[in-house]
Amino acid sequence: MKSAISSLVSSKHRSLNLHLNHSPFSNSISYSKTLSHKSTFIPVIPLNNNTSFSNRTLKLKIQATKSVSTMASSFKPEQARAPPAVPLPKPPVTKFKIALCQITVTTDKERNIAHARKMIEEAAAKGAKLVVLPEIWNSPYSNDSFPAYAEDIDAGGDASPSTAMLSEVARLLKITIVGGSVPERSGDRLYNTCCIFGSDGKLKAKHRKIHLFDIDIPGKITFMESKTLTAGETPTVVDTDVGRIGVGICYDIRFQELAMIYAARGAHLLCYPGAFNMTTGPLHWELLQRARAADNQLYVATCSPARDPSAGYIAWGHSTLVGPFGEVLATTEHDEDIVMAEIDYSMMELRRASLPTIKQRRGDLYQLVDIQRLNS
Amino acid sequence: MKSAISSLVSSKHRSLNLHLNHSPFSNSISYSKTLSHKSTFIPVIPLNNNTSFSNRTLKLKIQATKSVSTMASSFKPEQARAPPAVPLPKPPVTKFKIALCQITVTTDKERNIAHARKMIEEAAAKGAKLVVLPEIWNSPYSNDSFPAYAEDIDAGGDASPSTAMLSEVARLLKITIVGGSVPERSGDRLYNTCCIFGSDGKLKAKHRKIHLFDIDIPGKITFMESKTLTAGETPTVVDTDVGRIGVGICYDIRFQELAMIYAARGAHLLCYPGAFNMTTGPLHWELLQRARAADNQLYVATCSPARDPSAGYIAWGHSTLVGPFGEVLATTEHDEDIVMAEIDYSMMELRRASLPTIKQRRGDLYQLVDIQRLNS
Repeated sequence: MKSAISSLVSSKHRSLNLHLNHSPFSNSISYSKTLSHKSTFIPVIPLNNNTSFSNRTLKLKIQATKSVSTMASSFKPEQARAPPAVPLPKPPVTKFKIALCQITVTTDKERNIAHARKMIEEAAAKGAKLVVLPEIWNSPYSNDSFPAYAEDIDAGGDASPSTAMLSEVARLLKITIVGGSVPERSGDRLYNTCCIFGSDGKLKAKHRKIHLFDIDIPGKITFMESKTLTAGETPTVVDTDVGRIGVGICYDIRFQELAMIYAARGAHLLCYPGAFNMTTGPLHWELLQRARAADNQLYVATCSPARDPSAGYIAWGHSTLVGPFGEVLATTEHDEDIVMAEIDYSMMELRRASLPTIKQRRGDLYQLVDIQRLNS
Repeated sequence: MKSAISSLVSSKHRSLNLHLNHSPFSNSISYSKTLSHKSTFIPVIPLNNNTSFSNRTLKLKIQATKSVSTMASSFKPEQARAPPAVPLPKPPVTKFKIALCQITVTTDKERNIAHARKMIEEAAAKGAKLVVLPEIWNSPYSNDSFPAYAEDIDAGGDASPSTAMLSEVARLLKITIVGGSVPERSGDRLYNTCCIFGSDGKLKAKHRKIHLFDIDIPGKITFMESKTLTAGETPTVVDTDVGRIGVGICYDIRFQELAMIYAARGAHLLCYPGAFNMTTGPLHWELLQRARAADNQLYVATCSPARDPSAGYIAWGHSTLVGPFGEVLATTEHDEDIVMAEIDYSMMELRRASLPTIKQRRGDLYQLVDIQRLNS
């Protein structure tokens, strides 16, 4: 066996030929087979639910296209993302202050809007160039409340007083706002929607929560957003005055793939307005944001409502800014608070130079496909 | 805009038609386009380094194959992995004791082997059915030592006293051993290699570290394994008496994709022998193992050498078992210790039922490809 393996792997940097399928380790579940550098990888992946994924239909087709001599690395790190990750764009600003407004939310919508405005103004007065609000900040977090508090964001004006306020205050204060989320009515559907406003007051992007919060931890927390809400259909990355921002809402943070495709699209910062609860909060809130930041070597900001023990759904709080090493840079407990912190994007380059995982990925072994970007 | 969007999204569960490319949010970087359920997804992904990834070559080709009425979900969660994730296999045992032997490592190889054997025997005497050893437990961790301490594992016997001991003790004690790692010589190459022995003493699988530890945090830690070592070419999942185990070595844990493909291959437990250091240890050791466990809803076990402040490379210690909610089940500080803990695989089913993220993934938006499995 020694000589067989030796001969197969004797030409480092020139061949990935491996035949461990024929190894003596019979219990090992090995999927490797001959892969040549002279290959074009053409997976045929049916999008249909009911299609059986036989080995046959999933078989790679190998075609000769390029000579071995053109290869720079046998591991193809850039192919760990499809399309390949874009280079990190130069942000319009390197250092700036971010504010996470962990505000109290009541049943009084007018009060919620006025209160949020006051908090945003306070954050801007402290120098914030980017203000993040919590998930569902204009309404109680409940399936009963979503329809009653929902606004028609696309109609705007009186049909959406919450986002009209955000637009106005962004323009007046010349700041970027990641506007937490509000229940959105669009036709006969409801969404959990985050609006991102530029410093000119214009709506730059709208993120509809992609992964609805449907969980059931018996005796602890059961919630089914899908009873009332519809899931969004697209990831959201937006260029702002304070960098390229990827947006997720709460449960979206559980899906590492979303953060990975945002990083591959060149995001500097991921913002997750969220309202984790008293069970999932202590279990996973900090863990998930630190993991997304460390794995993708970018900034992650979360913003929760303040805790109201009398509410039907009790938020965990703990709005947090995490740096590109997964380090907590600023956080708070569960009371109303404005978390002020500085973001310094030069740290991202430093971290990525120290731990160059982007260049060390094994694109010959795994690949994350960003389907919409691939298709664009 | 309202009516346009409404009409496009009016047939929930029947169409994913979205035209946010034509949205008024001009700063939003939107990649969505019309995707029909009647589609076969055929990305053409060149494997060549020097191929430019133009939009044209990466374009999806849409083909009609199935009628809409056959769709169970518009989100295609099973297609978030290619090939689709295998169902979690029924493990041979539901509950058992695992031991993480955080042993001291010296420059004396014979002593290291005898000492490791003693610790394994002690762990088995305490009831362990699975024993995990640290990364590079028979040798100092240094590029100078790797060639001098390396063994020819495939030749076996006298050519590999470290693995011969593991084989013998696994057979005598009727336990499974994830044998940490030792420097392996194979032809003119060196690998950082983990051997997994079954309770019959047979070598069930061999994992060669896939991602070499090449990092440079100035003034803190600089190490370049690639100076002496060659990277492995295949992920390793192995069926044992104590369940299906995915294996990574130390730096492998930084690559979330590896854990994701192990989970998709049906792993119950990921074992990462590792030797994080005094910089990356406090920063990331616990974070990464908790993230891999929580994101993939499986068990993660790590095993480090004990700390030797006089060593050239000082290990962080803190060998740990993490459960499928990302919860630390057992750990230790940095001294020599055997971490004993119980694994209960029924918890995996419970966690996956409570937080059904596997069924909530958006296979219509992202897809992780396991290239070797796809090609098998």
